[in-house]
Amino acid sequence: MQNFEFYNPVKIVFGKEQIKQLETLVPQRKKVMMLYGGGSIKSNGVYDQVVAALGGREVIEFSGIGANPQYDKMMEAIELAKKEDVEFLLAVGGGSVIDATKFVAASVHFEKDPWTILSERQRPSKVLPFGVVLTLPATGSEMNCFSVISKGDEKLGFGGDPRLFSKFSILDPEVTYSLNERQLGNGVVDAFVHVVEQYLTKPSNAPLQDRFAEGILQTLIEEGPKVIHVNEHYESRANVMWCATMALNGLIGSGIPHDWSTHMIGHELTGLFGIDHARTLAAVLPSVLRVQKENKREKLLQYARRVWNVQTPDADKSIEEAILLTEDFFNSMGLPTRLRVYKVEEKDIESIIKSLRNHIPVNLGENQDIDEAKVEEILRKAL
Amino acid sequence: MQNFEFYNPVKIVFGKEQIKQLETLVPQRKKVMMLYGGGSIKSNGVYDQVVAALGGREVIEFSGIGANPQYDKMMEAIELAKKEDVEFLLAVGGGSVIDATKFVAASVHFEKDPWTILSERQRPSKVLPFGVVLTLPATGSEMNCFSVISKGDEKLGFGGDPRLFSKFSILDPEVTYSLNERQLGNGVVDAFVHVVEQYLTKPSNAPLQDRFAEGILQTLIEEGPKVIHVNEHYESRANVMWCATMALNGLIGSGIPHDWSTHMIGHELTGLFGIDHARTLAAVLPSVLRVQKENKREKLLQYARRVWNVQTPDADKSIEEAILLTEDFFNSMGLPTRLRVYKVEEKDIESIIKSLRNHIPVNLGENQDIDEAKVEEILRKAL
Repeated sequence: MQNFEFYNPVKIVFGKEQIKQLETLVPQRKKVMMLYGGGSIKSNGVYDQVVAALGGREVIEFSGIGANPQYDKMMEAIELAKKEDVEFLLAVGGGSVIDATKFVAASVHFEKDPWTILSERQRPSKVLPFGVVLTLPATGSEMNCFSVISKGDEKLGFGGDPRLFSKFSILDPEVTYSLNERQLGNGVVDAFVHVVEQYLTKPSNAPLQDRFAEGILQTLIEEGPKVIHVNEHYESRANVMWCATMALNGLIGSGIPHDWSTHMIGHELTGLFGIDHARTLAAVLPSVLRVQKENKREKLLQYARRVWNVQTPDADKSIEEAILLTEDFFNSMGLPTRLRVYKVEEKDIESIIKSLRNHIPVNLGENQDIDEAKVEEILRKAL
Repeated sequence: MQNFEFYNPVKIVFGKEQIKQLETLVPQRKKVMMLYGGGSIKSNGVYDQVVAALGGREVIEFSGIGANPQYDKMMEAIELAKKEDVEFLLAVGGGSVIDATKFVAASVHFEKDPWTILSERQRPSKVLPFGVVLTLPATGSEMNCFSVISKGDEKLGFGGDPRLFSKFSILDPEVTYSLNERQLGNGVVDAFVHVVEQYLTKPSNAPLQDRFAEGILQTLIEEGPKVIHVNEHYESRANVMWCATMALNGLIGSGIPHDWSTHMIGHELTGLFGIDHARTLAAVLPSVLRVQKENKREKLLQYARRVWNVQTPDADKSIEEAILLTEDFFNSMGLPTRLRVYKVEEKDIESIIKSLRNHIPVNLGENQDIDEAKVEEILRKAL
C-alpha cells in the first residue's frame, strides 16, 4: 500500500424526506444563492421542498446550468453572486450543477481572472461555503472536492482543495423517481467507471480497497437493472445513490495507483462531439482494458473472477469474457459501447489526439505509458 | 436501507514515516499535552519521533494510562491540563489512550462533575481539540467520536458528539512492529467483532454495506495470521491497521440495524474479571450467534457463504460450520473462545447479569429481544 492522506468532512444526510433538513443545515442569517439546472426540479417537486425548507432566509436563484457547465454561463452566476453579496451557495441538481457551484464558490472572492483557476490551477484566498441537494446519482461530486468546467470544446478540471467539499449533501433517493432511463443509465455507468479507473490498474497489496471497489461494482451490476426497469423502487434507488457517492469520495482510491485514461480521452469526446460524459466512458473503457491487457493482467483476472464470476481456465479468455460482460452491462443500461454510434470516425482520431495533447501534455494511465500511439489504438478499437 | 447521517471529518495520515507530519498538523502556538501509556513508546522509538516532530512547542506529558482507562487516573490528567492551561491534546497510543484523551478533552472546560458526562450523558459546552498517533490497530477510536471509561468494575461509554473526532490521526504501520502476539491478536479480533456487530443482524437491503463489511472480515482473515506469524511484514500490518479503522468509523454501519450485545456483555466481563476487551468478545460472540441463530438466520447464511465459502446444502449445518470457523480463527489469533479459561463459572452468571442490568436496563440486540433469560443462555453456552 502506498502512503496516503484521507480527509472527507462532507456531512451526508441520506434518506426519505430529508430535504426538509435544509432548515437547520443552511445558516440562518446568511444570504443564499440557489443554483439549479433546466427546471426539472420545478416539475418534480424538489424546488418546492427546497424553498419551503429555506423559509425565512433571503434567497436568490440562478438557473439554467446545463450538462458540462459552461464557463461563460458560470461567469454570469459569479457576477450575480458578487452583486448580491451572497454568503452561502446551495446546489440543487446533479454533478453539473454541483461542479458549477464549486466554481462559483471558488471565484466569487477571487481577485484575478477566474479562468486562471482552471488554466493555471490558481488557488483563491477565500472560497464560499456551499451545500448540496443531489438529484442525480452519478458523478460523486456531492462528496468530493473536484469539479470540471467547460469552455467551448474544452473540459478542464480543478480541485483537490478541501474548501471545495460541500458542508452537507442531502441524498434523497425518492427525488430520482422522475429521472429518465438515459439519465439513470448514464449515472450507473459513470459510477461504475469511476470505480474501475481506481481498481483495474496493477496489484498494490491493498486487499481492502480492492474489496470495497468490487463491492461497489457488484452492487451496481445487481441494482442497476432494477433502477432502469422498476418504477419507484426505493431500495435500488437508494443503493445506486450510495454506490455512486462511495465510488468517488477518495475512500476506495486511498493508497493505490489510479488510471483515469478513460476519463481523459472521454473528456475530449464530450468537448469535440458533445457526447454525454458517461457515454464516452462506456465506449472508451472496454478499449482501454483491451489495449492495456498486459499491464492490467493480474487485476483483470481478479475482476473477471470476483466481479463477474468468470472461472475459465484460460487467462486470456477470462479477461476477454470479463470485458464482454462489462460491455453487455453498459448496453443493458442503454449505453452503446462503440463510437461509431455517435458518428465518430477514423478520420477524427487525429483531431482528438491533438486536442488531448493540448490539454494533457503527458502520457496517461497508471504507468504513464499511454502515449499518442496507444491513444490512437484505443480510439481505433473503440470505433 | 434506513435513513442515516454520515459525518466523519478525521484527517487520516497513513503510511511509513508519517509521525514527522506532526510538525505541521499540531497547531504551532498552542500548549500541548501529550498523553500516553506505560512507556512502551519510549523503547520502540515512537516517543522520540513525536518529541522531535513537536520541536519548538511547549509540551507537557501525562503517562501511565493503562488498558480500560480509569476515571480516577483521568481526573489527574484533567487537573494537570487545567493547571497548565493546555490548549491541544495529543494521544500517542492505542484505543485506551485515545479514549482517555477524549474524556480529558470533554472534561477540561466542563463546569460540573466530569462523572456526569458518563453517568448522565451531560454535554460539555467546550471540548479541547486533539490529535492521535496510533500505535495499536484495534478499537477504531482514532476515527470515531466514542470513548469508554472505567471506574472500578464499571465500564461506561460516551460520545456521539462530533467534537470528539480527532483533528487528525497518524497511522504508521511500522510502529506496530514492537507489539507482542497478544496485542496483535486482540486487535485483529476486536476489529473483526466490531464488523460482525454491525453486519450479522437482519437483512436490511443494504448490499453495499454488507459487501464493505464482508470485505473487512475477509481481509482480516487473510492478513491476521501474517501479522501474528511474520515479523515486520509491512503490507499485512498496513492492511490490518486500515481494516481496524474502517471497522468502526461509522461507514459500514450507516443505514442498517446494529447488534452490540456481545460488547455489552463483554464490558461486564472486563469490569468484573479483568479479562482483555477483545478476549471477552471472542468468548461471547460465538455464543450470541448460536443463541440468536433464528433471528440472524439469513445473514448467518450469507456470512457462511460469502465470508467462509461454506456451501453445505443444509442451512443449520452451514451456520454451525461458519460459527466453528469463526472460533477457529479467534483461536488461531491466540484468543480462547471459552470463559472457563478465565475461571468464569456458572455461579458467576447471576452477578454478571445483575451488573449488566445495572448499566443497561433494557433488552439487547438488533431486535431488543435479548432479555435476562437470553443473556443467561448466552453466558452458559460461552462457559
